[in-house]
Amino acid sequence: MSAAVAAGLPAGLALREEVRPADLEAVRAIVASTGFFRPDEIDVAVELVEERLARGAASGYEFVFAERGGATVGYACFGPIACTLGSYDLFWIAVEEGCRGQGLGRLLLGQAEARIRAVGGRRVYIETSSQPRYEPTRGFYHAAGYALEARLVEFYAPGDDKLVYVRAL
Amino acid sequence: MSAAVAAGLPAGLALREEVRPADLEAVRAIVASTGFFRPDEIDVAVELVEERLARGAASGYEFVFAERGGATVGYACFGPIACTLGSYDLFWIAVEEGCRGQGLGRLLLGQAEARIRAVGGRRVYIETSSQPRYEPTRGFYHAAGYALEARLVEFYAPGDDKLVYVRAL
Repeated sequence: MSAAVAAGLPAGLALREEVRPADLEAVRAIVASTGFFRPDEIDVAVELVEERLARGAASGYEFVFAERGGATVGYACFGPIACTLGSYDLFWIAVEEGCRGQGLGRLLLGQAEARIRAVGGRRVYIETSSQPRYEPTRGFYHAAGYALEARLVEFYAPGDDKLVYVRAL
Repeated sequence: MSAAVAAGLPAGLALREEVRPADLEAVRAIVASTGFFRPDEIDVAVELVEERLARGAASGYEFVFAERGGATVGYACFGPIACTLGSYDLFWIAVEEGCRGQGLGRLLLGQAEARIRAVGGRRVYIETSSQPRYEPTRGFYHAAGYALEARLVEFYAPGDDKLVYVRAL
């Protein structure tokens, strides 16, 4: 009973919205494979899956997974921002290192935006780091229609600003 | 066994850090008394107390309460921001309507900052609304040494921006 979406996807690729216990390890493996995140950041990514498994939709975390040949190779995690009317956070979007450069990230982001739009969401926010190694990440968001709206100096750590991107749906 | 702090406080006032089940109703009453918040926002304030009671320090929510004559008349709620080194959010600060204008807010904010500084915190962030009725709130933060660092247009709702204030400790 997968919620996989078949129409309009590249051959062999499926999207799934249902969250399963096996996603705990899948998300850890995907996020770790990118080489972008510290261990404590990887733990946070996995905790969002745990929260979803424990509390369901009440967790506030929604997921889209990309599967290829039965393997989960990427995902996006998003959810409504408390105390707002129609603003959403994209918390995580990551693609298995060996599957990058094939448009999976763009596909996952588009699917997340479609689901947000379908429930009346107005704006999607993405927070990321000012560190040089995130330049490809920032380029990805820019190409997907996101605009830089704010910079919080030294938010993450000394020398590491938070950048806030937004897209109005 | 109260964690009340006695030195240097106005007569009859005590500060307390321990969170008790009675704070669920105290926080609801304090936040509601201000007339500033929607019912869903008041629920969120109470949920943070619930989280603290259920999970302790692992909740990520720290509190300072102001008591006068045994009654809880104000509080601040703050905590470390996940995936940052030394950045903290001030989630809530509210004083019972009948006790405003006596410096309790400034006292609570100062105590929260002292605790953040004591554990190595570098920066405190406060998010608030651009709505005209929050002008006194913004004046309070400005007077307390907070600077406006970012504005997220229509974040809360159409016509209601999010303002991000910061103070470097």
